[in-house]
Amino acid sequence: MRRPVRVGILGATGTVGQRFVKMLDHHPEFEVTALAASDRSKAQCYAEACTWRLPGEIPEYARDLVVLPLKPPLECEVVFSSLPGPFARAVEMEFARAGYPVISNSSAFRMEPDVPLLVPEVNPGHLRILQAQREKGRFGAGCLVANPNCSAVILTLALAPLHQRFGLEAVAATTIQAVSGAGYPGVASLDILDNVLPYIAGEEEKIEQETRKILGRAAGSEIELGGMKVSAQCHRASVSDGHLVAARVSFSKRARIDDVREAFESFRGVPQELRLHSAPERPIIFRDEPDRPQPRLDRDAGGGMSVTVGRLAPDTVFDYRFVALGHNTIRGAAGAALLNAELANAQGVLHARESATSKH
Amino acid sequence: MRRPVRVGILGATGTVGQRFVKMLDHHPEFEVTALAASDRSKAQCYAEACTWRLPGEIPEYARDLVVLPLKPPLECEVVFSSLPGPFARAVEMEFARAGYPVISNSSAFRMEPDVPLLVPEVNPGHLRILQAQREKGRFGAGCLVANPNCSAVILTLALAPLHQRFGLEAVAATTIQAVSGAGYPGVASLDILDNVLPYIAGEEEKIEQETRKILGRAAGSEIELGGMKVSAQCHRASVSDGHLVAARVSFSKRARIDDVREAFESFRGVPQELRLHSAPERPIIFRDEPDRPQPRLDRDAGGGMSVTVGRLAPDTVFDYRFVALGHNTIRGAAGAALLNAELANAQGVLHARESATSKH
Amino acid sequence: MRRPVRVGILGATGTVGQRFVKMLDHHPEFEVTALAASDRSKAQCYAEACTWRLPGEIPEYARDLVVLPLKPPLECEVVFSSLPGPFARAVEMEFARAGYPVISNSSAFRMEPDVPLLVPEVNPGHLRILQAQREKGRFGAGCLVANPNCSAVILTLALAPLHQRFGLEAVAATTIQAVSGAGYPGVASLDILDNVLPYIAGEEEKIEQETRKILGRAAGSEIELGGMKVSAQCHRASVSDGHLVAARVSFSKRARIDDVREAFESFRGVPQELRLHSAPERPIIFRDEPDRPQPRLDRDAGGGMSVTVGRLAPDTVFDYRFVALGHNTIRGAAGAALLNAELANAQGVLHARESATSKH
Amino acid sequence: MRRPVRVGILGATGTVGQRFVKMLDHHPEFEVTALAASDRSKAQCYAEACTWRLPGEIPEYARDLVVLPLKPPLECEVVFSSLPGPFARAVEMEFARAGYPVISNSSAFRMEPDVPLLVPEVNPGHLRILQAQREKGRFGAGCLVANPNCSAVILTLALAPLHQRFGLEAVAATTIQAVSGAGYPGVASLDILDNVLPYIAGEEEKIEQETRKILGRAAGSEIELGGMKVSAQCHRASVSDGHLVAARVSFSKRARIDDVREAFESFRGVPQELRLHSAPERPIIFRDEPDRPQPRLDRDAGGGMSVTVGRLAPDTVFDYRFVALGHNTIRGAAGAALLNAELANAQGVLHARESATSKH
Repeated sequence: MRRPVRVGILGATGTVGQRFVKMLDHHPEFEVTALAASDRSKAQCYAEACTWRLPGEIPEYARDLVVLPLKPPLECEVVFSSLPGPFARAVEMEFARAGYPVISNSSAFRMEPDVPLLVPEVNPGHLRILQAQREKGRFGAGCLVANPNCSAVILTLALAPLHQRFGLEAVAATTIQAVSGAGYPGVASLDILDNVLPYIAGEEEKIEQETRKILGRAAGSEIELGGMKVSAQCHRASVSDGHLVAARVSFSKRARIDDVREAFESFRGVPQELRLHSAPERPIIFRDEPDRPQPRLDRDAGGGMSVTVGRLAPDTVFDYRFVALGHNTIRGAAGAALLNAELANAQGVLHARESATSKH
Repeated sequence: MRRPVRVGILGATGTVGQRFVKMLDHHPEFEVTALAASDRSKAQCYAEACTWRLPGEIPEYARDLVVLPLKPPLECEVVFSSLPGPFARAVEMEFARAGYPVISNSSAFRMEPDVPLLVPEVNPGHLRILQAQREKGRFGAGCLVANPNCSAVILTLALAPLHQRFGLEAVAATTIQAVSGAGYPGVASLDILDNVLPYIAGEEEKIEQETRKILGRAAGSEIELGGMKVSAQCHRASVSDGHLVAARVSFSKRARIDDVREAFESFRGVPQELRLHSAPERPIIFRDEPDRPQPRLDRDAGGGMSVTVGRLAPDTVFDYRFVALGHNTIRGAAGAALLNAELANAQGVLHARESATSKH
Repeated sequence: MRRPVRVGILGATGTVGQRFVKMLDHHPEFEVTALAASDRSKAQCYAEACTWRLPGEIPEYARDLVVLPLKPPLECEVVFSSLPGPFARAVEMEFARAGYPVISNSSAFRMEPDVPLLVPEVNPGHLRILQAQREKGRFGAGCLVANPNCSAVILTLALAPLHQRFGLEAVAATTIQAVSGAGYPGVASLDILDNVLPYIAGEEEKIEQETRKILGRAAGSEIELGGMKVSAQCHRASVSDGHLVAARVSFSKRARIDDVREAFESFRGVPQELRLHSAPERPIIFRDEPDRPQPRLDRDAGGGMSVTVGRLAPDTVFDYRFVALGHNTIRGAAGAALLNAELANAQGVLHARESATSKH
Repeated sequence: MRRPVRVGILGATGTVGQRFVKMLDHHPEFEVTALAASDRSKAQCYAEACTWRLPGEIPEYARDLVVLPLKPPLECEVVFSSLPGPFARAVEMEFARAGYPVISNSSAFRMEPDVPLLVPEVNPGHLRILQAQREKGRFGAGCLVANPNCSAVILTLALAPLHQRFGLEAVAATTIQAVSGAGYPGVASLDILDNVLPYIAGEEEKIEQETRKILGRAAGSEIELGGMKVSAQCHRASVSDGHLVAARVSFSKRARIDDVREAFESFRGVPQELRLHSAPERPIIFRDEPDRPQPRLDRDAGGGMSVTVGRLAPDTVFDYRFVALGHNTIRGAAGAALLNAELANAQGVLHARESATSKH
């Protein structure tokens, strides 16, 4: 049994940071040895610094860890980042240049051509452009792997088996998203009670662009965007966790509905083959009941790491339509980053600092 | 000043029935003289028979009206029906055959080719097939005018100005609907709290079919469906009133975004020309703010009779996308029927019984 | 017809400020001539400076008023203040000393013995200590009238008729309060969705103290607290507007339940006698239905200015129990202040600056 | 290791029935061998007969069990009943008379003097009146043990340590209850969205009476009610699971706040001593944070079997006040009955039929 990799969490007190803290409790490969957050004017332990908002208690291991400023060095080998977008760019770059592999949940570098935008079941091969990234040296001795926007993870997981078999030409995705996606305090209760918001800043663009990158291919040192057309309309509803995506899709090949259904049901990926710790047994759970998936009933499927698909039907404008649902702060954020780290670790590309160090 | 038309309400104690009772209070053309509902084992006045669920009190005029069984004759000249679908068919037919013009909010006869499926700003000309309907005699000495499904009203109001100018080829509509659309008790709180339901029985089919009928044309004695493709995906969210429709549209003619915007803003119809009592000044209210329309802020626009449109943008798969919102139990139900009756009254085709009688 | 009094609103862009703007539209006695808010780094008109969150549009009169800094002088004779507590103290004092009568909704001066804590139906006589306040000169040429905490207004309105007739000895009030009470952004949606919060900072103390002051008596130059015992437990629930107070009460005199009921029903006050513009016809609406009052159905009773009382029953520990409900941002805030101003105006004590000036 | 007791569930498809099915999955003492529900016109397996509304899937063991009518005999030794009140009386009596020990969650027999109304940490000694119950023979060869109303369980767990140490004289309990307490479909979403209901039929009476019985004492063949005064006011809020009780208490002995706190924290009962399978380690979790307990964060404490207490403070009318919260369908219903069965099993009084049989 290998010694666990020591990891740090940047943004540990936020909504996604708390998910990291929880999901890393008793993790077989990773041990949290550093927590960092902004505005650390004075040293505080995590239990004091953090207003814990998840059901259950703060994991024991984290309670007494002192929350540090967002500055390298931290006492760890790898960092997970759940920093908010604008802020993330400088901090993540600083950690990468200080030699840390950065597993990022932020949007800062997602669309850069030499950054893998990874969903391990969908595009595990994209990880190989890390080598080009390192050669360019922009991220110093470290490196950076990004996971997509929460809705894009859920959407691309549902699209992957269809794209592989039938060739995706066009997708129109309409989302109904949970308030936890906006972090804390995030959405004001006065804005969402008895209401729906038809706007999430930047979200439609992110889904449209990121989907094409995730479904694109690693060509040399860059990711080439997929050629499919992607349209997104995004809404926020009064749901705590669980993003729902109503999707319509057209294919380049003819597909019978039974084949589409079978594609969803049989879908497995590299994380399942490698039996990665956070990989759900079934990345997609297909349901036949007419009223599923639902956030409350399906968001925790596969420990929050499965996407549930239902309501598959022929469409009058596109070829087919269906509804996909996933847990936005698990599969769409902390769990996404964690599975990325597990894949990178399994493929031996996570220990950037050591290899960097060994060069010298 | 003309004597008011005496009207009856079938299903007066239900969610939509209560809206009828409220909207008909102090109406200049109609006077409610009869209330009827199912399960009237014993005579009760409306204040006793009805658990009033709208804010404010039961209108004075209705409190002491005795609620009668759903059987003709009723002491009135016209009936409004808000009966649930399966049940409505026999009762509405019975009233029509007894000589009453029936202004129906139910789904029973909506798709029959000789029944006008009316949205007065959109297809007022469809009212003329009433003559063919009467000649056929299926509805006896009475007649029947239907209003569409609540979502279809809101969608077609938003589509009408675009179809008139640019020729609608395809529309993909994704709805997020309010719980009041399911009547009372309707949706169980356990099903919708912290949840979204991706299924409303029959709704997607209704929207797909009714939209094509409303946007079709009166050809001889029947309505011919429009040729556009219509796709609908429907969801229920934790909202009391107000259906939101995220729409994507493609046109046969080229349209610049300013022209689309202008089409929405300048749209007026026959009800506005005739200054019908329930007609809003502007059937469509176009908003530029990035986060509108919202159910809580916009459902009551124009007294609940306006549809608010926003988030207009070019689409990557279709030509344009936008979001429309309307009050489902006002513009989508009771107000829809009422405006239909006002149009029929203004055009002199409401007094079926008298004209039938006068023939003899 | 008198010339309207020109008024300014301090904190005009906030939740309560917006209610002021709306309630003062077309007011017969007051004309809004100045709007002020914090953080006015550059001049903006109200329509730009304010994210309007009430249903319906910004009143026409307010759209183009420039929002000014919170500094006297303002072009008006009286100011309404809805500033947040800590901040309010200095600003309100500054305006008072500059000669403005300040009608305050903030908590800054509520418990000071020479400040009338006014609910016009309950303790209109407290207004007379304004004279002592002026003589002391602490507020300069101006003066200050406060309205109570939102829950205390609702509670004391319900208690007043009982205290008048039966002598209140003890009250235990348990509140279930709306999120609008916390202003905007206020309560985070993640904190209240599928949840109840058993804590509102400072609220229990405010209710316990303010209730005794409101039900106390004007003795010389000060208000003497009432002798009753008051206990409060406060909760926040997923409701937009409408505070509910479950109350248990004991009296010094014996009271039959019919007398208690009658006391509620017959209660009228000075605002009703004087027919003040914002006074509801009935300050208390008593309901016999077993499931009333409810926030959604009863908060708008009397234009949001009536308190609805129901569920009256004998109690096993106290004499009686009942439930009271009122609109927290209307009767509990903006409407409370407005009615205070109307009473002060009717009694000729509102025009402090002029009278101050005329002395010199 | 003993052979597991074979149990049946009456009302297996309802809200509480589903909790039974889930909590009995992999139970070390009980094995579910029979499921029964009303309206079983045709034989269906549980997976078909039941619309599963809990997160996660139906436990494997239950999927293929045929749901039987509510008639003895069933293939089991003991029955759990979660039938609705009026209906429960006849069915439970029929099963008892057929020789089954009935572990009842219904209200049918709760207040009968010879029926133990059991909360195992609070009044385990009440179980001994089962012997008197059997001698009277009213329940035939079987017997009946009831658990209290969901709110009464939570309240009495919090009161028990105080009553033991300080002697409870009076309690005023104001509840804010979850919608799952009303079963399914239960509360209509239109009634609770953006609303609070101040009424739950029969609930206030149940809490007032049951609390006194639970805190009473077994005297001969009957339970004698406790002498304390109990007042209850009940409300329903927009919460899925978790009943909150705001309590005020007065004692016969003087109590310092530290002693009250310590009484909560140190409280343990017979289930903890016996290490019963469903017994939480701590029946009461005391929290110091000012904003706890909250339904969303605390309902699942101790697997839903702990009651969380917070906001302890001196009260101006009573001695102290505090807030208690528990999971209403676990600790307040299915878990309550299950812990009762575990206690009865541990004390050897569960196998009524055998002992009855052995007499003959």
